Amino acid sequence: MTAPPSDLSRLCIHTATTRPWGIEEAVRRYCAAGVRGVTVWRTAFEERSPAATGALIRESGLAVVSLCRGGFFAAASAEDRSRAIDDNRRCIDEAAELGAPHVVLVCGAAPGQSLETSRAQIADGIAAVLPHASAAGVRLAVEPLHPMYAGDRSAVNTVGQARAICNAFRSPWLGIALDVYHTWWDDRLEEEIRACGREGTLFAFHISDWRTPTLELLEDRGLMGEGCIPIRRIRGWVEDAGFRGFHEVEIFSRRLWASDQARFLEDIKAAYLAHA
Amino acid sequence: MTAPPSDLSRLCIHTATTRPWGIEEAVRRYCAAGVRGVTVWRTAFEERSPAATGALIRESGLAVVSLCRGGFFAAASAEDRSRAIDDNRRCIDEAAELGAPHVVLVCGAAPGQSLETSRAQIADGIAAVLPHASAAGVRLAVEPLHPMYAGDRSAVNTVGQARAICNAFRSPWLGIALDVYHTWWDDRLEEEIRACGREGTLFAFHISDWRTPTLELLEDRGLMGEGCIPIRRIRGWVEDAGFRGFHEVEIFSRRLWASDQARFLEDIKAAYLAHA
Repeated sequence: MTAPPSDLSRLCIHTATTRPWGIEEAVRRYCAAGVRGVTVWRTAFEERSPAATGALIRESGLAVVSLCRGGFFAAASAEDRSRAIDDNRRCIDEAAELGAPHVVLVCGAAPGQSLETSRAQIADGIAAVLPHASAAGVRLAVEPLHPMYAGDRSAVNTVGQARAICNAFRSPWLGIALDVYHTWWDDRLEEEIRACGREGTLFAFHISDWRTPTLELLEDRGLMGEGCIPIRRIRGWVEDAGFRGFHEVEIFSRRLWASDQARFLEDIKAAYLAHA
Repeated sequence: MTAPPSDLSRLCIHTATTRPWGIEEAVRRYCAAGVRGVTVWRTAFEERSPAATGALIRESGLAVVSLCRGGFFAAASAEDRSRAIDDNRRCIDEAAELGAPHVVLVCGAAPGQSLETSRAQIADGIAAVLPHASAAGVRLAVEPLHPMYAGDRSAVNTVGQARAICNAFRSPWLGIALDVYHTWWDDRLEEEIRACGREGTLFAFHISDWRTPTLELLEDRGLMGEGCIPIRRIRGWVEDAGFRGFHEVEIFSRRLWASDQARFLEDIKAAYLAHA
């Protein structure tokens, strides 16, 4: 059995988790709470530039863990695909200015074309931006999304599919962001994580929980312990595979966003220590 | 390319698809519309006994395609698992009285226990009721459910997992109900369907569509053509695997249930011919 986290030293929170807070309040509150890392969502740049955001976070003593997010490479029209590539280059530049070691990619899917076509467009998109990423010193982390998002958000729905993309490039700048919410149901998960360990592609580890019932597809995630995901067991697989990075709390929840965020932050800490 | 259906001779509708109609109205309307088969949901027996329902359907010239549904074998307590087994025996008896060749099994999942434990309980439950099914001359069709139902409705989420259960028993009374809604995202689907063909386990084929966006998990399915599922392509795989049964329209949709059901039935026919 994997031991509980002994402290908060590897706890990271996504700014989208406490969405009602702006970036400055989020950083101040996380820091005061003893959280050690922050993953920045690009909405933060509406308030402050990437460079200023990075400076703010580092001056507070927090680590910049990741930038969310690029991707969305699949599209019916060549013009839209080209626009996505441009936007990913901008996102990589922002990550470099922010000082984030990697960008998370939600790869995209286009209703009306096959998943195979979308996956080919995703590979083309990554091929187009990977040189820019390596030149900028920013890694790209493909995040497999739950199959319920195959229709419109990502044609990459398993760690196996993400590995296939990584293995097509074999670049140290390309790896995988593993999120328990998207992958917990997969009976191949343990072996796929082990393979990621061998291949050196495990760049990020995201946690939250799956509520039963789940009321809608996008914004009804649970706090760790509120659902049925064996988070600690999966963390054990991830650490057995050599991962030593942050445990990133990424919860989209209208219910929790509507609650007092200071109290929610305390609940995140307690839930992390009890269930992660 | 698979050709469109040439007529309605293999069109079957689930009574749950036109839920506002009672069983008598559903049968009368389906019959008048030229539909040839009906899959009965057990709620119909609140109006008429299984035997009387079967007689009504056959006298109308329709085929009884299936009874929905049994299953829900996974549960934390032995008492609940035992109750589920009793209920499945009753469901098998109802299918025999109705004259349905098979019962569809939604296998169950219990939040708080691992998917492996739930799958073992499902296998135990099937082992307990399979002799009753064969004695009654009723087949059992395991339906893999979409991974978004792994938390609380089924720990069997891929055709591969359903095949593993069938291969553990190797009984002519146990097979698979394939639903495009639950399985379309799976990159192994074509090969798994081919394997089902070799193993002789393809008992049923359900169609509907995946809307983008899908607003909630249970009752927002689309009419064929309203979404992104390559229904005809999957039907081609199913028929290449030797399946010659009905194409069963199973749509749970609050939106469509709220619409005029006579018009909806006409839309189902048109959508079937255009997209199935």
